[in-house]
Amino acid sequence: MRIAVDAMGGDLGPRATVQGAASAASSDPDLEIRLFGPRRQLEDEVSCLPRLLVAAGSRLQIVDAPSVIGQGQSLSDALRHGQTTSMGRMLDSLSRGEAQAGVSAGNTGALMALSRRSLGTLPGIPRPAISTAIPTRNRGRCYLLDLGANVEASAERLVDFALMGEAMARLVDGISAPRVALLNVGVEGAKGTASVREADALLRRQSDMAYCGYVEGDGIFGGSMDVVVCDGFVGNAVLKASEGLARMLVERVQATFVAHWSSRLVGLLARPALRRLKGELDPVRYNGASLLGLAGIVVKSHGGADATGFHFALRRAVQEVRHNLPGRLAAELDQRRSAMEATPPSRFDEGSGIPGPASQDHAENHQE
Amino acid sequence: MRIAVDAMGGDLGPRATVQGAASAASSDPDLEIRLFGPRRQLEDEVSCLPRLLVAAGSRLQIVDAPSVIGQGQSLSDALRHGQTTSMGRMLDSLSRGEAQAGVSAGNTGALMALSRRSLGTLPGIPRPAISTAIPTRNRGRCYLLDLGANVEASAERLVDFALMGEAMARLVDGISAPRVALLNVGVEGAKGTASVREADALLRRQSDMAYCGYVEGDGIFGGSMDVVVCDGFVGNAVLKASEGLARMLVERVQATFVAHWSSRLVGLLARPALRRLKGELDPVRYNGASLLGLAGIVVKSHGGADATGFHFALRRAVQEVRHNLPGRLAAELDQRRSAMEATPPSRFDEGSGIPGPASQDHAENHQE
Repeated sequence: MRIAVDAMGGDLGPRATVQGAASAASSDPDLEIRLFGPRRQLEDEVSCLPRLLVAAGSRLQIVDAPSVIGQGQSLSDALRHGQTTSMGRMLDSLSRGEAQAGVSAGNTGALMALSRRSLGTLPGIPRPAISTAIPTRNRGRCYLLDLGANVEASAERLVDFALMGEAMARLVDGISAPRVALLNVGVEGAKGTASVREADALLRRQSDMAYCGYVEGDGIFGGSMDVVVCDGFVGNAVLKASEGLARMLVERVQATFVAHWSSRLVGLLARPALRRLKGELDPVRYNGASLLGLAGIVVKSHGGADATGFHFALRRAVQEVRHNLPGRLAAELDQRRSAMEATPPSRFDEGSGIPGPASQDHAENHQE
Repeated sequence: MRIAVDAMGGDLGPRATVQGAASAASSDPDLEIRLFGPRRQLEDEVSCLPRLLVAAGSRLQIVDAPSVIGQGQSLSDALRHGQTTSMGRMLDSLSRGEAQAGVSAGNTGALMALSRRSLGTLPGIPRPAISTAIPTRNRGRCYLLDLGANVEASAERLVDFALMGEAMARLVDGISAPRVALLNVGVEGAKGTASVREADALLRRQSDMAYCGYVEGDGIFGGSMDVVVCDGFVGNAVLKASEGLARMLVERVQATFVAHWSSRLVGLLARPALRRLKGELDPVRYNGASLLGLAGIVVKSHGGADATGFHFALRRAVQEVRHNLPGRLAAELDQRRSAMEATPPSRFDEGSGIPGPASQDHAENHQE
C-alpha cells in the first residue's frame, strides 16, 4: 500500500510529518510513503530520524515540490498556484494512481478545493463533507459531519451526510447498525430549520438505517449515537468550541494542582494520574478527518498535530484504503438512491433547501 | 424591589426555587419576592425553609396558580392554557407592573412565547434573543447570543443581537467598551454564510462599538471577546455541546482519581483540590439567561438549577432591574438606528437575509 503525504502543511513543520510518516511505516511493514515537499528539507528530516525509525525510513520516498500553500493563503491563489506545491503535487500523484490515499495537515479550504479538482466527487455528491470522530462519555466515539465544507446544507445534502457517515461507521469501524441522528435545537418534531425538518422526514423513510431522530448538542458526547449530522457552519462552530473548552478545562485542572498541591509528596503522587488524564482527553488519538464523498481517499490531519498525531491521521487513511471506502460508498449511495426513488411519495424534488420564513413559527426553541 | 418567580418550572421542583428565592431575599434586604404556584405546595416549602432563611421568608409572598407548564408541553398548548399556570400568572403580574422582573426555570419556548405576549418587545425588535454568560480561559466571561430563540437570523437580526449584547455587557457589567465578535467558520472575510458576511459589513460601520470581526468557536472561551453573536441554531448547538463536553470531562477527572488513587492519604489530600476544581467548572455561577429585547425583564434559569443556581438567576434579574436594562436598551437601539440611517450608503434595505446559493462559492471552509 502506498500513501502520499503533503509533508509541509502542519504548523510544526516537516519534522512532525516526516517522523509521523516513519512511525506509521514502522508499525505497518506493507506501507510505503511518498513525501511531498522541498527535497533538501525533507532529506534533512529523513536523515535525522530517531534511531528506532531509521529502518522504516527506507520506505519513505521523497518527491520534490518547491512551494507550500500557506494557512492564510486565499482559495483562488491556492487554486492558481497549486501545481508546484507539496499539497498540489501530492494530490496529482494520487489522481494518477501512484498512491491509494493522501494525507495533509495543511490549509483545509485549499485541500478541499484541490482534492475536488484532482479527484472529483462520487456520483450525485456535489461537494464532499468533512467528518471526524469525537470522543464520547462511554469511551466510544461519534462521527460528526459536516465540519465546514458546506456552510449551508439543504435537506438532500444532510441526507447525503447521514448516508456517508453511516456507511463509514459501518464499513471502516465495523459497527453493524450505526445509530444516526440529526443535530437540532430540540428533540420535538416542530423545532429547527426547514432543511433539518425535511431531512428528518426523508431519513425516517430509510428503513435499513438506524435513524434515531434529533439530538441536541450534548448528544454528540452522550455515547448513544455513532453519527451526528449537521451543516458545516454548525459542525465547525461545535468542533472548535469543543476544542477551546477542552483546552480551557485541562488548563484549569493543571492549575488547580499547581496552585494548591505545594507538598512535594502530593505533587509526585498526583503526576501519573494527571498524565493519564491528559492522555485520555488528548484529541490526538482521534486525529484525521475524512473528506467523505470524494472519488478518492484524502485525510486531513489537524494543523497542530505532532508526529504521534500525524501517525494517527496516516492510520486513518490506511484503514479507509483497506476497506475501499470510496468504492463501497459509491455503490451504497447508488443503491440507496434507487431504493428511495422507488418508494413513493418521494419528496426529493420538493423544497429548495433554503429555509423559508415559515419555519420561524416553530422557532420558540430553547436553551436547555 | 419586587421580583416575580415561577416557582414550579425547574426539574428539581419548588423546593429549589423557594429556597433559592429565600436565599436571594436573605442576601438583599430590599428584595421582595412573589412566588407563583399551587398555594398549598408553596406554603409547605416556605414552612420548611432552613433556619438561616426563615427571616427572609417573611419577604416571600405566595400567589396561587393551580397549574404548571410541562417541559414537553407544546407551544400552542402552553399559549392556550397559559393563564392559569405559574409561568403565565407570573408574567401577567409582571405586565401589570406588580413586579420589576420575572424569573422562571421552566420550558424555554413557552417562557419566550408567553413573555412576548404579556410584555411585548422593544421597538424594532421582532423577537427577543436569549443570552447567557460563558466562562472564559482568563476567568472572565463572554455573552453568547442567540441561544435558540431565532433558529435563523438575517444580517439585521445579527446586528440587533450585537447591539443588545454590547449594551448589556456595558450597562450591567460595567465594561466600558465591550469587544464584540461574529461567530464564523474562519476569520477571513470571504468565509461564512451571506447573512454573517452582511452583518460583518454592517457592524464595521458602527464607529462607537468595539467590533472585532469574526471569531471561530474556540474564540468564545478565549477571553478576548465580551460578546459573541450567532444565530440561535448555532448558539444552541454550541452551548449544549459545551455543557455535554464539560460534564464528560468532569466525570473523567473524577474517574481518574477514583480509579488510581486508592491510597487513603492521597484521596484525602486530593479531595479539597478536586472540590475547588468542580466549583470552578460549575456553570451555576453563571446561571440566568436574559431574554434580551423584551419590553421587560425576564430571566431564564437552567431547568436543572438547584437552590444556589436559582439564587444566581434571581441576582441576574436584580442587576438588570438596578440598571434599568430594557429602558436603556430601547433608548440606545433607537439612537443607533437613527445614526445608522443617517450614514450612507445604507445597506439595511438590501438582502433578505436568507443566504443565497452564491455563498457556497466561499464555502471551502475549514476544520481547524
